[in-house]
Amino acid sequence: MSDLADLTARMRAFTEERDWGRFHDLKSLTLALTGEVGEVAELVQWLPASAAVDVPDERLRERLGEELADVLLYLVRLADVAGVDLAAEAARKLTVNESRFPPGEHRGVAPERH
Amino acid sequence: MSDLADLTARMRAFTEERDWGRFHDLKSLTLALTGEVGEVAELVQWLPASAAVDVPDERLRERLGEELADVLLYLVRLADVAGVDLAAEAARKLTVNESRFPPGEHRGVAPERH
Amino acid sequence: MSDLADLTARMRAFTEERDWGRFHDLKSLTLALTGEVGEVAELVQWLPASAAVDVPDERLRERLGEELADVLLYLVRLADVAGVDLAAEAARKLTVNESRFPPGEHRGVAPERH
Amino acid sequence: MSDLADLTARMRAFTEERDWGRFHDLKSLTLALTGEVGEVAELVQWLPASAAVDVPDERLRERLGEELADVLLYLVRLADVAGVDLAAEAARKLTVNESRFPPGEHRGVAPERH
Repeated sequence: MSDLADLTARMRAFTEERDWGRFHDLKSLTLALTGEVGEVAELVQWLPASAAVDVPDERLRERLGEELADVLLYLVRLADVAGVDLAAEAARKLTVNESRFPPGEHRGVAPERH
Repeated sequence: MSDLADLTARMRAFTEERDWGRFHDLKSLTLALTGEVGEVAELVQWLPASAAVDVPDERLRERLGEELADVLLYLVRLADVAGVDLAAEAARKLTVNESRFPPGEHRGVAPERH
Repeated sequence: MSDLADLTARMRAFTEERDWGRFHDLKSLTLALTGEVGEVAELVQWLPASAAVDVPDERLRERLGEELADVLLYLVRLADVAGVDLAAEAARKLTVNESRFPPGEHRGVAPERH
Repeated sequence: MSDLADLTARMRAFTEERDWGRFHDLKSLTLALTGEVGEVAELVQWLPASAAVDVPDERLRERLGEELADVLLYLVRLADVAGVDLAAEAARKLTVNESRFPPGEHRGVAPERH
């Protein structure tokens, strides 16, 4: 089964079993997502630029794994509440980007936004 | 195939074909993730609390779909660079939360963090 | 003396006394700012919409005071490193907004961005 | 006059003249703050680490000035709604940090959080 659909279903059940749906409006979930992205930022903010390009050490990778997981869990929950098919939208957006940034023209050039 | 693994592979190929790997260190990708979450925030910030709990109108849902897709694309890219198995970490974290917040005790009570 | 200029000078001295200037580049400080805004978000994310419009209780106000202070300290430090006169820029931007959003036309209407 | 108090008073008048107070609850303003920090992140995300430590070029500095100003305007508005004296809290927090991180012990060492 699709892992995004699976996480979405599990997060919905998790929410309903605790009657937490009342807290899960678009604004509250976006704030929760902001909080988790802030925790990722705190993990990497003082890394030397050189360390930031290497694979992080094991301890940092573990902590990043936990925070990135929290970001994903709120993201799938927010998409579910918003009625957005996250997997389909991401695949579509990536296809758009592939044609919007032809490899030849943009090779090694910092993208404006992508 | 797992859709997260599929998106991760496509984002990696997208990056390599454009030689954009030089831009994709942990700090730069976390900043890109922050920028996309900021775009989600701008879409919902002035919604009346009542509207925020309903399914959004079609125009807002479309715009949310695009921004949430951007968040996911940078999230899978960041996890790939960090050497994190995002699907496995999210499933594991959700299992931890299920036992950490027993439905009975936490029913309808605003979670401290979940 | 201007309190923003005073905070800027104190943060610069604080940084130099600890030889932390090496950590205070534009990207690292923006990540630190993101982390602090994330802590503000975590404090308000589950507030009922009704509570969010009232003055917060004393405990929440104290915690908000600490996190908003952290946001300001990194903001003045980031502006200093960027060579931006924050007080002048904010006063100028507010003057622009005052003419961009004439009270008559925009009365009670959710602003697109302001 | 204190420039933070001046900006706070001007933002309050700006809001009241447009009857925008209804939009300025703690959650909505934190989302607006998140959106503006996201715009700062988008400006610096792809900067090479080397460029990030120099003073930015004039064009980037101008754009940073505008976005940092927006961050400050929402920050003072949020503090006002929260009943927080931002200047006093920031001065107090900085005094705490000065004693919490003695220059000798922390010289040149990446701070955990500061």
